[in-house]
Amino acid sequence: MNDNKRSLGLAVAQMGAVNLADTRESVVARLMAMMREAKSRGAEFVVFPELALTTFFPRYWMSEAEAQQRFFEPAMPGPATQPLFDLARELQMGFYLGYAELTPEGQPFNTAILVDRAGKITGKYRKIHLPGHSEHKPEAPFQHLEKKFFEVGDLGFRVFDTDAVRMGMCICNDRRWPETYRVMALQSAEVVVLGYNTPSVNIHWNEPAHLRTSTHLVSLQSAAYQNGIWVAAAAKCGSEDGHHMIGSSVIVAPTGEIVARALSEEDEVICVKADLTLGEFFREHVFNFAKHRRPEHYKLITERTGAGEPVA
Amino acid sequence: MNDNKRSLGLAVAQMGAVNLADTRESVVARLMAMMREAKSRGAEFVVFPELALTTFFPRYWMSEAEAQQRFFEPAMPGPATQPLFDLARELQMGFYLGYAELTPEGQPFNTAILVDRAGKITGKYRKIHLPGHSEHKPEAPFQHLEKKFFEVGDLGFRVFDTDAVRMGMCICNDRRWPETYRVMALQSAEVVVLGYNTPSVNIHWNEPAHLRTSTHLVSLQSAAYQNGIWVAAAAKCGSEDGHHMIGSSVIVAPTGEIVARALSEEDEVICVKADLTLGEFFREHVFNFAKHRRPEHYKLITERTGAGEPVA
Repeated sequence: MNDNKRSLGLAVAQMGAVNLADTRESVVARLMAMMREAKSRGAEFVVFPELALTTFFPRYWMSEAEAQQRFFEPAMPGPATQPLFDLARELQMGFYLGYAELTPEGQPFNTAILVDRAGKITGKYRKIHLPGHSEHKPEAPFQHLEKKFFEVGDLGFRVFDTDAVRMGMCICNDRRWPETYRVMALQSAEVVVLGYNTPSVNIHWNEPAHLRTSTHLVSLQSAAYQNGIWVAAAAKCGSEDGHHMIGSSVIVAPTGEIVARALSEEDEVICVKADLTLGEFFREHVFNFAKHRRPEHYKLITERTGAGEPVA
Repeated sequence: MNDNKRSLGLAVAQMGAVNLADTRESVVARLMAMMREAKSRGAEFVVFPELALTTFFPRYWMSEAEAQQRFFEPAMPGPATQPLFDLARELQMGFYLGYAELTPEGQPFNTAILVDRAGKITGKYRKIHLPGHSEHKPEAPFQHLEKKFFEVGDLGFRVFDTDAVRMGMCICNDRRWPETYRVMALQSAEVVVLGYNTPSVNIHWNEPAHLRTSTHLVSLQSAAYQNGIWVAAAAKCGSEDGHHMIGSSVIVAPTGEIVARALSEEDEVICVKADLTLGEFFREHVFNFAKHRRPEHYKLITERTGAGEPVA
């Protein structure tokens, strides 16, 4: 099984700030420029950020109706995003894109899609671990209203065979929860891709600033190692109308090692040739789930939601 | 809740090699010396390694009967270990100790106990994630026969209130599995302690040597952060009769940061004053399980043992 090395040219296209005044068309032009750069550097798949098409609007207090009118996509592709799909087909490049989805039934989700090299949508994910709050916090320097603007995702953590790679998706805060990756690894995922917008300031407690980045990295590194998967994570970062977000987009190998990392807080492409057979050593030995897992001792993970008292 | 800071003087007593020729009494004398040092440096609890009383015998091919006769404890405390319990009571010091347990019914387990400051056993854990193999591998440089010598632990991942701290335990390979910590965090663990013996060479595949340590660290760091707990891990390390094991015993804060690390591969005490309220910031906000977890999407974690096909 390890004799025929399979590899994937895997790129992450980190984005600098998208301000309120920026148009969808200007954003898509930036994404297309990065897709072309990724292609020129050997990539076959490129990961774009969460809510890539607009500013990170959950920081602003407004009505659901206003948010949906200004920031949500009723169709994907739509008029502004069709060129990205056309370019994918032209370049034979798959991609992950995060955006605010408004369904025909009017349901709002924080969504990501997988698109294959033919420009066809092969998978969809709707964010499950919505962080933040739903009420107005006028005393906070900014809001984090994901629990107001989005419904909890209803599609689960699925994996998709896209251009012969078994790929899973998650979004931003999902990346900090080990359950996210385990559910996908139990479906034999080889690669998990994600986008994120992470404010540099924690509005909930006085968290030292450096932890915003270190906890991001350690979560991705352990996830890659403990599941024998590649993980590729794309930030939207820098200062959006004065609101700063962390960068440090990375690609992590199944060894848990960071093999590519963005250094700027601007549009920046990072790219690796990902050896897809590398994860098999981990999945066949230390994390051979069939041999070593003991689900009879994991029951609390699905039986309880919150933390409770000791089991006697 | 965060106004009254609670702290714990937390020490890890890493051990250098225990060779085949070493007696239980000589080992216990080393443990007692480190307990005294830990006390002198402000510790109230000290973590000793896995299978601390003998060499790491699962590396040797022998019969179960021979292993049990040479390396297992039919009683705890027994004649050789009673002095450690007596010293704990004298110093008012709690501890974690790993040893090979032979039950009155003849069942062999890889076991750890919690002992309180009165020298009383307040908790027991039997290792669940047994690594290695049960068959003889004559071509390998050494064996890893935990699946031969031990039964899978039958006590689950419980937590115990010991000297007013809610503490969980695991052993060695358990530390690489996120389920381990999550089950204990769902019982409101504040501290998880563990011992380990990790050979520096992977006999299963040609794993780069540095990964033996980096994957150990990233597993502990993510576990501490993602559960808002302190994690303290004690190695037995160095060269046991020519068989080398990694050191890098650490204490990790709920921030995911390594706050103390052993530098030698010998007997060495590391110690911190652990702020037990620090974890509450994580458990109340980013990892407020009751607010953010979605067990309805985690079902595969308990429904499947091995990795399988994608869920449609």
